[in-house]
Amino acid sequence: MESNIVYVPIILAVLGLVFMFIKMSWVKKQDAGDEKMQSISKSIKEGALAFLNAEYRLLLIFSIIASIALFLISQYVDTTHWIIVVAFIIGAIFSALAGNIGMRIATDANARTTEAAKTSLPKALQVSFGGGTVMGLGVAGLAVLGLSLFFLLFVSMFVTGEGNFYEEMTIALEALAGFSLGAESIALFARVGGGIYTKAADVGADLVGKVEAGIPEDDPRNPATIADNVGDNVGDVAGMGADLFGSYVATVLAAMVLGNYLIRDMSATTQFTDAFNGMGPILLPLVIAGVGIVASIIGTFLVNIKDNSAKEPEVQKALDLGNWASIVITLVASWFLIRWMLPETLQMNYFGEGLQEVPSRHVFYACMIGLAVGALISTVTAYYTSLGKKPVLDIVKNSSTGAATNIIAGLAVGMKSTFLSVILFAAAIYGSYALAGFYGVALAASAMMATTAMQLAIDAFGPIADNAGGVAEMSELEDHVRERTDILDSVGNTTAAVGKGFAIASAALTALALFAAYVTFTGIDGINIFKADVLAMLFVGGMIPVIFSALAMESVGKAAMEMVQEVRRQFKEIPGIMEGTGTPDYAKCVDISTKAALKEMILPGLITIITPIIIGLLFGAEPLGGYMAGVCVSGVMWAIFQNNAGGAWDNAKKSFEAGVEINGEMTFKGSDAHKAAVTGDTVGDPFKDTSGPSMNILIKLTCLVGLVIAPILGGHSANTHADKTAKEIRVEMKEAGGDQVKAKITVKTTENGETKTEVKEVTGTDEEVKKEIQKHE
Amino acid sequence: MESNIVYVPIILAVLGLVFMFIKMSWVKKQDAGDEKMQSISKSIKEGALAFLNAEYRLLLIFSIIASIALFLISQYVDTTHWIIVVAFIIGAIFSALAGNIGMRIATDANARTTEAAKTSLPKALQVSFGGGTVMGLGVAGLAVLGLSLFFLLFVSMFVTGEGNFYEEMTIALEALAGFSLGAESIALFARVGGGIYTKAADVGADLVGKVEAGIPEDDPRNPATIADNVGDNVGDVAGMGADLFGSYVATVLAAMVLGNYLIRDMSATTQFTDAFNGMGPILLPLVIAGVGIVASIIGTFLVNIKDNSAKEPEVQKALDLGNWASIVITLVASWFLIRWMLPETLQMNYFGEGLQEVPSRHVFYACMIGLAVGALISTVTAYYTSLGKKPVLDIVKNSSTGAATNIIAGLAVGMKSTFLSVILFAAAIYGSYALAGFYGVALAASAMMATTAMQLAIDAFGPIADNAGGVAEMSELEDHVRERTDILDSVGNTTAAVGKGFAIASAALTALALFAAYVTFTGIDGINIFKADVLAMLFVGGMIPVIFSALAMESVGKAAMEMVQEVRRQFKEIPGIMEGTGTPDYAKCVDISTKAALKEMILPGLITIITPIIIGLLFGAEPLGGYMAGVCVSGVMWAIFQNNAGGAWDNAKKSFEAGVEINGEMTFKGSDAHKAAVTGDTVGDPFKDTSGPSMNILIKLTCLVGLVIAPILGGHSANTHADKTAKEIRVEMKEAGGDQVKAKITVKTTENGETKTEVKEVTGTDEEVKKEIQKHE
Repeated sequence: MESNIVYVPIILAVLGLVFMFIKMSWVKKQDAGDEKMQSISKSIKEGALAFLNAEYRLLLIFSIIASIALFLISQYVDTTHWIIVVAFIIGAIFSALAGNIGMRIATDANARTTEAAKTSLPKALQVSFGGGTVMGLGVAGLAVLGLSLFFLLFVSMFVTGEGNFYEEMTIALEALAGFSLGAESIALFARVGGGIYTKAADVGADLVGKVEAGIPEDDPRNPATIADNVGDNVGDVAGMGADLFGSYVATVLAAMVLGNYLIRDMSATTQFTDAFNGMGPILLPLVIAGVGIVASIIGTFLVNIKDNSAKEPEVQKALDLGNWASIVITLVASWFLIRWMLPETLQMNYFGEGLQEVPSRHVFYACMIGLAVGALISTVTAYYTSLGKKPVLDIVKNSSTGAATNIIAGLAVGMKSTFLSVILFAAAIYGSYALAGFYGVALAASAMMATTAMQLAIDAFGPIADNAGGVAEMSELEDHVRERTDILDSVGNTTAAVGKGFAIASAALTALALFAAYVTFTGIDGINIFKADVLAMLFVGGMIPVIFSALAMESVGKAAMEMVQEVRRQFKEIPGIMEGTGTPDYAKCVDISTKAALKEMILPGLITIITPIIIGLLFGAEPLGGYMAGVCVSGVMWAIFQNNAGGAWDNAKKSFEAGVEINGEMTFKGSDAHKAAVTGDTVGDPFKDTSGPSMNILIKLTCLVGLVIAPILGGHSANTHADKTAKEIRVEMKEAGGDQVKAKITVKTTENGETKTEVKEVTGTDEEVKKEIQKHE
Repeated sequence: MESNIVYVPIILAVLGLVFMFIKMSWVKKQDAGDEKMQSISKSIKEGALAFLNAEYRLLLIFSIIASIALFLISQYVDTTHWIIVVAFIIGAIFSALAGNIGMRIATDANARTTEAAKTSLPKALQVSFGGGTVMGLGVAGLAVLGLSLFFLLFVSMFVTGEGNFYEEMTIALEALAGFSLGAESIALFARVGGGIYTKAADVGADLVGKVEAGIPEDDPRNPATIADNVGDNVGDVAGMGADLFGSYVATVLAAMVLGNYLIRDMSATTQFTDAFNGMGPILLPLVIAGVGIVASIIGTFLVNIKDNSAKEPEVQKALDLGNWASIVITLVASWFLIRWMLPETLQMNYFGEGLQEVPSRHVFYACMIGLAVGALISTVTAYYTSLGKKPVLDIVKNSSTGAATNIIAGLAVGMKSTFLSVILFAAAIYGSYALAGFYGVALAASAMMATTAMQLAIDAFGPIADNAGGVAEMSELEDHVRERTDILDSVGNTTAAVGKGFAIASAALTALALFAAYVTFTGIDGINIFKADVLAMLFVGGMIPVIFSALAMESVGKAAMEMVQEVRRQFKEIPGIMEGTGTPDYAKCVDISTKAALKEMILPGLITIITPIIIGLLFGAEPLGGYMAGVCVSGVMWAIFQNNAGGAWDNAKKSFEAGVEINGEMTFKGSDAHKAAVTGDTVGDPFKDTSGPSMNILIKLTCLVGLVIAPILGGHSANTHADKTAKEIRVEMKEAGGDQVKAKITVKTTENGETKTEVKEVTGTDEEVKKEIQKHE
């Protein structure tokens, strides 16, 4: 069993994929409703697939260029094998596939959810959540499968047992980083492109349809309405799926790299061995991920309601139950896995403190920190963005004095929400590192991500319900159908906000783990910001998320403007639209959103990928580390700020729909305060759906690019190792009374890229200590 | 001469102060206009002084608490003498005095400028710029005088020549840091309090007066109009004065600390000596500052126009001429001073590269970089915020589709403006460090700040002209008077934007120099963000500017709300205000602004000061360094973003006053697009006048607090030194063909807190190299 453990995650991943297919065929077997509903659903699906296909064509070009670049790197650096190109391509394909599966099922599930809602709310939940489950399992299954298979392949290729284990494994893991890079690159474009698409369509549909023509949301007379619904799918479903696919893969990869580093620390005196072919710490995160898939499947069975007259709280409770069940199962399993797969005592090299003994249960505690912080940050996010809570009510109150005060209040809410999130995040870094070094940090992230399948199922159910409502509206069904889908949609909005908190927390921890892996890959001692070049790059890195956000926001503005003009044109030129006798040209609007999104995603995407390469090549490994840290610090702030401000504005606007009390007066839709709130929501739209979520991928991808080019920078390629030997002796002496001195001798020997550290403390006369020191020469 | 060089800056500072008094009495001698004008001017002055006095009472309490804390530190740490308390108090008093002088002259000069504008524009410029000159010279003179006198005192107290020079000088400079801390603390409260005051009054006056009652700006019927004009003075004059006073002192101090560090590097083998009592590198920045005062005085003579029908460009040209003249004079003088006061070759310790020889002219090149980057960042700022340039026109264009698109465009402009500014700033760090280490960085900042007197004269002239316009309006003078003051005001708006760019650039470079000084004070090796605690604090630091901004913005909101209610109450309850028969209760509005500003400035102020202390004490010197870096990186981004977004919104709104073309149509004041632009401007007000400028002080004060508590953290107090001796030998070996090896031996000895580094390269057989190494034991 132990020596074949790598097959366990493969089996679990396949299990997840099988269950996905069963669920998928179940959803597809459901009644898709009458002809009109099917036709609307088909339009949405076609629009979404048209976008994806156009996107893939563009990404094909990118992938070819990136592959050539990677191939050149592999030719130049001995520790990078050309197989990384294959890993990169498969990573890109898997990521695209994960988004594609999610998108297809989501567009299949929408009309079926509407049809189910005709008769029963529990059934509607089952169908929409079933769609989400398919997506979640697709993402998680493909991620674990891809990682495991490639790991198996690379270990058989590179870890021959002839050379140094750490060195050989590093080559294998560097190749595996290609898989992660492929996945994350596609995620970036999917997120940015999808984000621009969805907001351009949304703003365009709202500004002309709702405001100028005065027709309700999702009205079939609005030419942009199909594009709007397509946008929900390409942004919230495909974008989110690719994002979490990328996080998931990157987290597990970083944990594996740090597991290898742990093995090196533990091999200081004799080579580390265990029952898992000496790879226990490397395989652990992979196995936990596999177990997380099964835990998620079990969790999905718990998500159901019985009462047809249930409201939001019951639906929310059902989702919470499933979520917590899968988390608890994963946690319990981790306890046993850690006991089984890690030695009881680990030796870890802490900075400035040398090798320390760490009991393996500390790794479990680090996992608990990861899960706790993930949950707490999600809670903080929910607090700052939920209906009826103080932050949203503050914005509502400030809407009464106009748009300006509404905007100021919203910005302030977003900014203030960084406080608790960052404190929690800093505590997670501090705590999990103190417990189990950077391996602990990476495992904290892995634990948080282990139930990705479940998280994504909950996330993806929201847009399906949203679309189901759209189908109901466009097909002009009875009111009770829309009421039922609205209940699901409303819960979906809350889960979306919480999901965004989770996505940020996981991206930040992932980036951190990648950052740590980067340092080990380059072989530098650390990243000292007291060096001017490192400090300068810290500032440059801090600027990138700001510029990225600005570009993304402007792109939405430009694309929305085109959409507005097209919708105006159609209203003017196509006769009988408003009377319902003429049919709007939906496809034209879909086309505009598609083209604009693709055009506008290129620049921010290239900035993200090329800047770290330039900095690494021009300035070297340590300044690039400073740049990465700058991107992470600034990116986390701007992600939290933009997501939460956007979410809060959205719900402040929604507060007026049910009516809200301002200074003792009930205020409703259509009031001046409501109009001010609509302005705030429009500002918040690109914040929360385009630039905000893109920050996650920006920080992860920056660190991944760094990781992949690390071998070029660190100069630890095989041919430079051969003749590099260094010995460093550090002696600290203190007087210890009388003529006695107390000396701490640290000897650090580096040979063939492997560093050993010995520490010895001696007390004696000056002469005695000197002799002791000479022994180490 | 050489050995008494310290008296040179004292003499130059006194010269500056004498010239200030001459200019002051000249301004006061001008005709203050008719009774009505004098009464208005008096009301503004009384309101401003009432605010300052209330502020001083509050700051007295703060200063007493801070003094006690400092005294306790001085009792606990041997290298901190209780005299630091005196330095702190005098620093606080000088800063308050600088603000007070500026405020008094500004409020004296406003009506006199109006009176002069009745007859002549050149005269009006002379009076308003004369007022600015008084303020600039007051700030610069007091700063150089205070620093020089305290330095003289502390050198005579602590640098006895008996002990180690570097150690003794460190104690003297640590005491001097108290002066800087006092100045910067007052600056923080002045900036934040003034910023809240001015925007509360402004928004209150605008919302009820302009929007609800439909009366023009500065109309005497508006109860908040005096408060609004007072606000211009307490925010833009006193706040800006205290801010630059703080920057000026902190920059020179940091350069002196790094000068001392340079002396230590150069004393590696034998104690450094020169004609300036062995203090040349320490005194250089002080002398350059003194020369800068004289250069500024010369520059002021060049600021005048001849033609009474001159327009904005001529006025701008006159100011530019004076500004550039003083910069060029300072630069030329620096060339000679550097040649005279520094040895021709400096030895500097670069990280990882050991001691390097640096020609002293490289320090001059670093100064040039400082001046160039200061000018370029100002230009970038001007581009992003000026009328008629693309960024502002973009916002104007986006105003046509409503407030939401205006806001999005403004946010995007602010965000995009970080790009060039940060690249320039990073280049300045990189370049000046490469040229002359951190001493070069500090001298770059010093050179940039040397002409502070001139910069401030140009900055302060704006609000005086603005107020002069207000006096003209309230006194119902003829239109041509207002037209003339409007020309000055308009130029003042541009110089204000440029001045803000300058203030950010200088604050950022100052913070950096302080950061470097901090590392030398604590005696740590560097700040390694690969350590989890340092990284965690980097994130916490990055969050502080965001929270600070949120608090400042909310404070403005709250205070403005109170003001709105008061103005509404007066319109309702005092009969005949609108008809001009009743007199509004101006004092009540002034009082509300004052109280609100003082109440609201406390929390952000305390966060700034207390957080680094807590982090330092809990986590130690290196994590605090991470925190400081986080505050700086994030603070610089948010400062640039907020200042430039605010400035751009302001001018986008102003564009409509003269009419602007949108999509081929001329659009004017009162249009829907203009209303959208007003919303943007209201959002931008707290950005550009409250939270944005506060960032400067936040980053400087954070680093200063760190510097002052450094001795507690670094453990380099005298009694721990005595028994601390460390020797570190680092050997790097490379095969050099045959049996030869090439070894680089680095021996670092630390004795009594002094570190010597010897580097030797040997090539020979293994045996020979071993022998060589043993020699160093």
